[in-house]
Amino acid sequence: MRALVFDGALRVLDRPEPRPSPGEALIAVRRAGICNTDVEIARGYMGFQGVLGHEFVGEVLEVHDEAHRAWVGRRVAGEINLGCGACARCLAGLSRHCKTRTVLGILGRDGALAERVTLPVANLHAVPEALDDDGAVFIEPVAACFEVLEQLKVEPDARVVVLGDGKLGLMLAQVLRATGCDLTLVGKHPRKLALASATGVNTAHLDDSVPGDADVVVEATGSPAGLDRALSLVRPRGTLVLKSTFHGAPTVNTARIVIDEVCVLGSRCGPFAPAARALAAGRVDPRPLIDATYPLGDAVEAFAHAQRPGVLKVLIDPRG
Amino acid sequence: MRALVFDGALRVLDRPEPRPSPGEALIAVRRAGICNTDVEIARGYMGFQGVLGHEFVGEVLEVHDEAHRAWVGRRVAGEINLGCGACARCLAGLSRHCKTRTVLGILGRDGALAERVTLPVANLHAVPEALDDDGAVFIEPVAACFEVLEQLKVEPDARVVVLGDGKLGLMLAQVLRATGCDLTLVGKHPRKLALASATGVNTAHLDDSVPGDADVVVEATGSPAGLDRALSLVRPRGTLVLKSTFHGAPTVNTARIVIDEVCVLGSRCGPFAPAARALAAGRVDPRPLIDATYPLGDAVEAFAHAQRPGVLKVLIDPRG
Repeated sequence: MRALVFDGALRVLDRPEPRPSPGEALIAVRRAGICNTDVEIARGYMGFQGVLGHEFVGEVLEVHDEAHRAWVGRRVAGEINLGCGACARCLAGLSRHCKTRTVLGILGRDGALAERVTLPVANLHAVPEALDDDGAVFIEPVAACFEVLEQLKVEPDARVVVLGDGKLGLMLAQVLRATGCDLTLVGKHPRKLALASATGVNTAHLDDSVPGDADVVVEATGSPAGLDRALSLVRPRGTLVLKSTFHGAPTVNTARIVIDEVCVLGSRCGPFAPAARALAAGRVDPRPLIDATYPLGDAVEAFAHAQRPGVLKVLIDPRG
Repeated sequence: MRALVFDGALRVLDRPEPRPSPGEALIAVRRAGICNTDVEIARGYMGFQGVLGHEFVGEVLEVHDEAHRAWVGRRVAGEINLGCGACARCLAGLSRHCKTRTVLGILGRDGALAERVTLPVANLHAVPEALDDDGAVFIEPVAACFEVLEQLKVEPDARVVVLGDGKLGLMLAQVLRATGCDLTLVGKHPRKLALASATGVNTAHLDDSVPGDADVVVEATGSPAGLDRALSLVRPRGTLVLKSTFHGAPTVNTARIVIDEVCVLGSRCGPFAPAARALAAGRVDPRPLIDATYPLGDAVEAFAHAQRPGVLKVLIDPRG
């Protein structure tokens, strides 16, 4: 089958047909998204080589075990972390943090920017019928937004800033405003801020004087400078949720963290079920973020498109 | 009066006699400590120039307001942050984080490495009689240790690492083990680790294989490399309390914070009352940390002594 492979260079290659192992399903990918993490991987982040892609929706073609037969034919999204299932972390419900985990398209396991992909059935989530493929491919990134609410109680009267008007920032704004909080999305791209405004989100341009002293700042800039910028916006004893990962280690004004006694909370993958519910109900609508959909054969071009300034989500339809 | 002044160079100078303003007391300093923060200030941290010193015990000589007369003659320690008393932060009980605050010997206000110092009566804490001057001068730094317990519930069955066997690390170990937690002090100075062992604290050398996956790591190395080292010891979703301030901004492996969803919690000044109680009761005994006491006239030499490798606390007795 064809797949988008990073092996030092980025290429669409023919790869051996994947086969489901015990507990696993074989899935025909219907849509896969290009995420900033994929872009960072192609810059060296995580040292990953293999098939990229961890945002997808697909249809189960077959399962290894007869007991899982009911999954065949269902439309699914998939949790990307595969824990060992036996260590103390897995047994404590922290399989997303298992020390020997693999991560789809990121760490030790081929990803979903391919015609077909395998995943354990335990990782699959059935996609609600009301949610089409273009919406369902966002379940994984919207789940990462809901992770903030799993980690942190956002008070209904909190003043919240989402810093960064990229894909993640725009989705975070939609997820977090549902708490009732006083939310402002801060960014620097007029078109992206306008997209947020159109959904009723308050926005501010980075160059405007953004009021500081926010109770919660969610850093989603994807940039090494984002943490320091976020620190300038959060109040003493406030919470700064850190979402950006990238290749390299930035310099950080740690004295500010100490003096202002800020809580810097790292936040990664999140729960799929609330994401699927919010998308199916239209409470989160990421479809305006889709700038283009490419066939798999043009995935390298799609990757370049995704990195152009101002571009939001680029999807791949591997059936094309 | 004489005072240890940093004005680009470090010198003992004659300074104008301080006079108490409305609400303030004039205090004759009996002991003042040299803290790593003072050393960092002399390297440019905070851009402070003036009389150094924020750890002290002294006797109230006079007060500005008749209503405060009962303080005269009492032995006191003093909270170092002076809020404006009128802003939203002060009114919310966060005067230690007031935007226009001054900080004794650190920010906009002359400090206590001097014969006399002024502070608002509202900042004073009477020193229990059972606590001598050598113990009472530690109320301020031990309060900074109790700040961790004000910010964070340390569970009795938590595995806690204190990273750094300097003065602050040694005191933190004594304060935190009282929670009943499984605590290890990790450092690299055999003499300092032995001091901790002598008080019943478990210790480990940095070069030994220190088990990771701690629930809580308290970073007290005073070093730019401390945060990354602490990140390697904390479990996913664990808490890393950051105590070190220094001149400059370190590079930080922020991807580790995000991927492991660590909570990095800045921690600064703390509550004086529990510190005074613990010191008076002997539950925290910092006196083995005192390496030398100098008269104020030799404060520059004392400062050099405090920076020698392996040295812990150096005190100044301004009456000498």
